[in-house]
Amino acid sequence: MGMSTIDFWYEFASTYSYPAALRIGALAAARGIEVTWRPFLLGPIFAAQGWRDSPFNIYPVKGRYMWRDMERICASLALPLVRPEPFPQQSLLATRIAIALDAQARPAFSRSVYHAEFGEGRPIAEASTLAPLLVSLGLDPEEVMERAQSPENKDLLKRECARAAEIGLPGAPCLVTADNEIFWGNDRLDAGLDWAAGTRRPST
Amino acid sequence: MGMSTIDFWYEFASTYSYPAALRIGALAAARGIEVTWRPFLLGPIFAAQGWRDSPFNIYPVKGRYMWRDMERICASLALPLVRPEPFPQQSLLATRIAIALDAQARPAFSRSVYHAEFGEGRPIAEASTLAPLLVSLGLDPEEVMERAQSPENKDLLKRECARAAEIGLPGAPCLVTADNEIFWGNDRLDAGLDWAAGTRRPST
Repeated sequence: MGMSTIDFWYEFASTYSYPAALRIGALAAARGIEVTWRPFLLGPIFAAQGWRDSPFNIYPVKGRYMWRDMERICASLALPLVRPEPFPQQSLLATRIAIALDAQARPAFSRSVYHAEFGEGRPIAEASTLAPLLVSLGLDPEEVMERAQSPENKDLLKRECARAAEIGLPGAPCLVTADNEIFWGNDRLDAGLDWAAGTRRPST
Repeated sequence: MGMSTIDFWYEFASTYSYPAALRIGALAAARGIEVTWRPFLLGPIFAAQGWRDSPFNIYPVKGRYMWRDMERICASLALPLVRPEPFPQQSLLATRIAIALDAQARPAFSRSVYHAEFGEGRPIAEASTLAPLLVSLGLDPEEVMERAQSPENKDLLKRECARAAEIGLPGAPCLVTADNEIFWGNDRLDAGLDWAAGTRRPST
């Protein structure tokens, strides 16, 4: 039997994807599970449910709860938290770049985007925010941006979003196991990884 | 310093409240925390957000995810799971009864309602389902039902629902600590109880 694998679906505009992206690497490595990072856009999925904005904005009670919950989670993980304005941030460019990167660079770039967005409150829709992140990873921003905006790469992202809708992802982040179990939320990383590892501990 | 306390807010129509209600007693006892059981109705809170039905029915993607998630959770806890029809069940009568009971009988009655509803798929809106549960707790169903439907008891439930809205409960189940922290979901019982116990472990 080969190494267990799991798909980590995340959205750059998603608050709970921030701690999840920072935690998933160590949690998966501890169980010997290989993670495929799959950035996608929640916009089309939310639009299909009639939402034209983040549900955290549409439903203020949920929004207030979420921000306080994020404060607690980030404090417990010693992660900085600064609310980006506006919320949610437009995540299209960052997502296209992440998709254009290889499996080595994608996780590091994604973590750096989350840190800029939610750790420092910086605008991730702007190339001027993202280019320095690529430079600090040893990549050529112009070359990567050109690849990110190519028709082939745009199509690739569209196919990933279609796949996310087809799987039935209810939000982000999600783990999807090889046997198609979905685990939704930063608070379900352990349950999803345990399922993938075959231990299937109580997924309370 | 006295015993730590926590409020457990739950709704009989809520699926995730079922495993939470079955788990909370042991988890709280292990930490020496006293639990106040506070049944309430989500209907008015959802109506204020424009929902006239369960969000799990309004948003089928979330509904499909929830039911599969419930299957996994119940399997891991060795709890039976039978979907009641219709879903959600009308919970007003059961909630009035629970409110009318004292702090000793309320948890036991509430667990038995959840077992009938989600463990056996029985209709909890009907007095014929609920009366035998009272009998098996050594209570007089006629006396309890009369108290449950009294104007005083109806007012008490209305005040509890108003309080839930005032606190800003985003759903059910929720734990609310003495310092007004809200922890939403069956998957956050440990985090809420740890907060109440003062240990404040990472609330991933």
